[in-house]
Amino acid sequence: MYRLYGMSGSGNCYKPKLLLAHLGMEFSWVEIDVRKGESRTPGYLAMNANGKVPVLEIEPGKWLAESNAMLCYLGEDSAYLPTDRWQRAQVMQWLFFEQYSHEPCIAVARFILKHLPAEHQRRAELPQLQARGHQALAVMQQHLAQQPFFAGDQYSIADIALYAYTHVADEGGFDLSRYPAIRRWIGEVRSQAGHIPMS
Amino acid sequence: MYRLYGMSGSGNCYKPKLLLAHLGMEFSWVEIDVRKGESRTPGYLAMNANGKVPVLEIEPGKWLAESNAMLCYLGEDSAYLPTDRWQRAQVMQWLFFEQYSHEPCIAVARFILKHLPAEHQRRAELPQLQARGHQALAVMQQHLAQQPFFAGDQYSIADIALYAYTHVADEGGFDLSRYPAIRRWIGEVRSQAGHIPMS
Repeated sequence: MYRLYGMSGSGNCYKPKLLLAHLGMEFSWVEIDVRKGESRTPGYLAMNANGKVPVLEIEPGKWLAESNAMLCYLGEDSAYLPTDRWQRAQVMQWLFFEQYSHEPCIAVARFILKHLPAEHQRRAELPQLQARGHQALAVMQQHLAQQPFFAGDQYSIADIALYAYTHVADEGGFDLSRYPAIRRWIGEVRSQAGHIPMS
Repeated sequence: MYRLYGMSGSGNCYKPKLLLAHLGMEFSWVEIDVRKGESRTPGYLAMNANGKVPVLEIEPGKWLAESNAMLCYLGEDSAYLPTDRWQRAQVMQWLFFEQYSHEPCIAVARFILKHLPAEHQRRAELPQLQARGHQALAVMQQHLAQQPFFAGDQYSIADIALYAYTHVADEGGFDLSRYPAIRRWIGEVRSQAGHIPMS
């Protein structure tokens, strides 16, 4: 049985949980409070030298880091990772888009607003994070206005990755009312068999 | 024949060029000067709505963005992308590490030092970029002290992705002399059949 080390409320940690739920696979959960330094202990760093959550323990001594790498690993040979070469390429494109152009703006803005005190100096980062986050949302809106899901007609791990922080983008100060295709897509993600809310 | 749209001197654009060289595949190159706005024209945005280089044209109308997605696409069914499920998972882990924890520090520090004037206000970002870049290099050093390449004994697209900006990290102010395993690995990457320098 898989063991997942992660922090509740983290979108990155929600991604493998959501896919495991779709797949109907059991796993055990180990809560890691990053804010208390629990991802920087010697024991944790032995699993992931980069000190980030989540970590997927495939078996004792065999640990995988990076949430989107977990989606690829767990999604292989399932309906959530297409086998067609071009569709799979598009899935990969959106997974890297998520980690480079989306998460560093939208998740970070959410972190600052949700977890740091109101007078924290990192609030100065918000205008730039907002501008870049809206760029990412505009790219998503344009794409989803043309097709149901990120890799075409089929719900895939690309949707799981992008849903994780998009559906809570309001907590980062992003108003989704101007992105109707994204809101339509959020509803479709929620209606997929086996969907679970973030926790 | 593939067509690659990119900017000379960009590590992200070098990645697919290097893999295509290893594979002995011909391609045509279209120079895009990002600094002149050439990645934000309507024609370019039709290929990649995110306005970034590189873009791989697989055939007219079929465009793939994200350098690491190109490595996955082009590397499939080659010696550069393992078929073993666990090895492949590790390749993916390092590809996402590169785009999240490495490139945004090391490539951005290099951009600021190499392409912006000495008095530019973005120089204020350098101390944090240096600190986070050294964290990424330390993770790489630790890993490469234990095994030859990122996904084990075999040179793969994970090495290509991480080599792109690591071998020019000095241009971002990173002294690699304290990372002997990284320097050993750089030499091994350069000795791979079909290797070409960045241009």
